[in-house]
Amino acid sequence: MAKRSLPLSRVYGLLEPGPVVLITTAGSERPNVMTQSWHTMMEFEPPLVGCVISNRNHSFGLLRASRECVIGHPTVEIAEQVVACGNVSGAEVDKLARFGLTPKPAALVAAPLIGECYANLECRVADTGMVAKYGLFVLEVIKAWIDPR
Amino acid sequence: MAKRSLPLSRVYGLLEPGPVVLITTAGSERPNVMTQSWHTMMEFEPPLVGCVISNRNHSFGLLRASRECVIGHPTVEIAEQVVACGNVSGAEVDKLARFGLTPKPAALVAAPLIGECYANLECRVADTGMVAKYGLFVLEVIKAWIDPR
Repeated sequence: MAKRSLPLSRVYGLLEPGPVVLITTAGSERPNVMTQSWHTMMEFEPPLVGCVISNRNHSFGLLRASRECVIGHPTVEIAEQVVACGNVSGAEVDKLARFGLTPKPAALVAAPLIGECYANLECRVADTGMVAKYGLFVLEVIKAWIDPR
Repeated sequence: MAKRSLPLSRVYGLLEPGPVVLITTAGSERPNVMTQSWHTMMEFEPPLVGCVISNRNHSFGLLRASRECVIGHPTVEIAEQVVACGNVSGAEVDKLARFGLTPKPAALVAAPLIGECYANLECRVADTGMVAKYGLFVLEVIKAWIDPR
């Protein structure tokens, strides 16, 4: 490689482009949804997923309180809604309604599936030991749905 | 979505397809390289990266001992070598030599950069608190190189 030093502030752009997902959480007023890309598989089975969620996100408090969420895999058809979900706070806006995302009942958790996603993973928080320091929630996928089409 | 239940053993295939990277480590005999896709950004700056490495990997011991590594971003031209690196153990094989990957000296760590990668991130292990339970190394990127072409 010809090599040029890259500012450390731009490193995230190299590692971030994994699958962008939507994460729903249940709330006392309404469910919320956020756009998320800081996640990694941690174990095959039972599937464990590490998700980094900033405490500045409305979903952080909802996830910590409810200890459940759904990870939805958007299709390219809803790419604009996915971007839009990442740019407003669920503290002020019913994002599912605003962006035309359809909540569907999950089997094992209170957070909704998203009808427009091609896969939905029902998760329970398995470990909060790294939440205070890194915002890292270890999630166990307890039920997985996929669109067979 | 039309929805079908997905076996939990296949969930990883939904979350894994982020950028596949190569991770080099220094060793007393020779450096090693492994193919890796279970990683996530954890902080913007200083950039923190969480990398899950099984204790069954040769790189696990090298990383734990040296506390340094380089994360290389392969180009499509070396896709076959990247796959091959993921299918043999560095305990038996000098993978860099076998697969024609060129080690280059890094600025701040003993692990080599990979000449064929378009970006190389020099990392120090910042936190081993989650290694025993999850194989999760928190890495701090201390120097980043990118090919300007």
